[in-house]
Amino acid sequence: MYRTNVSEVREIKTPHGKRVRWLIPREVGAKNFEMRYFTITNESQPSEESHPWEHQVFVLSGKGIIQSGDTEITVGPGDAIYIAPDEPHLVKNEPNQVFTFLCMIPAGYEDRVKG
Amino acid sequence: MYRTNVSEVREIKTPHGKRVRWLIPREVGAKNFEMRYFTITNESQPSEESHPWEHQVFVLSGKGIIQSGDTEITVGPGDAIYIAPDEPHLVKNEPNQVFTFLCMIPAGYEDRVKG
Repeated sequence: MYRTNVSEVREIKTPHGKRVRWLIPREVGAKNFEMRYFTITNESQPSEESHPWEHQVFVLSGKGIIQSGDTEITVGPGDAIYIAPDEPHLVKNEPNQVFTFLCMIPAGYEDRVKG
Repeated sequence: MYRTNVSEVREIKTPHGKRVRWLIPREVGAKNFEMRYFTITNESQPSEESHPWEHQVFVLSGKGIIQSGDTEITVGPGDAIYIAPDEPHLVKNEPNQVFTFLCMIPAGYEDRVKG
């Protein structure tokens, strides 16, 4: 059994200004999927992504916007979002909101810095 | 893209008195892993489990206790816990605490009622 806390995990800043903490990475034995904690603020420069693996997101605090093609949804605490493989997506905070969420991915598909 | 909220998902009571909401089940396309939301109160009758799939837990509110063999840890908000395949585990609330957490599992390994 492995335990950590958000406050104990090093925060990494991605090239687009997102902040990410890898709470449960492969290194602790997680072979199927990995858990990350994101913080998005005004310093983030959102960019659209598309890749052959899915995201599962759970919003913890603040409000954010997820765009996918012509669809745009506003999300907030308690929302769970599934973004399918190869679905284009852009994630940003609502202006002046500190937007935090968990994002799970299949293990081994993203590197630590990219997030 | 699929979105739901904890408040919109039907709560199921398991035979041991846990309450579970399947936020992101296979039915919405999640082929690799699934996301559930648990609420454990005094009405839960904790029981030790062991099975060949892992758990990833993120604590949202309240305090709980996770036992694994001779190890017992108290967990609270912001804690992330990895329970390995075949590791015995028992999860309960601290007395009089409403303990809520997310628990992710590989897809297809648990049925809706068992949780």
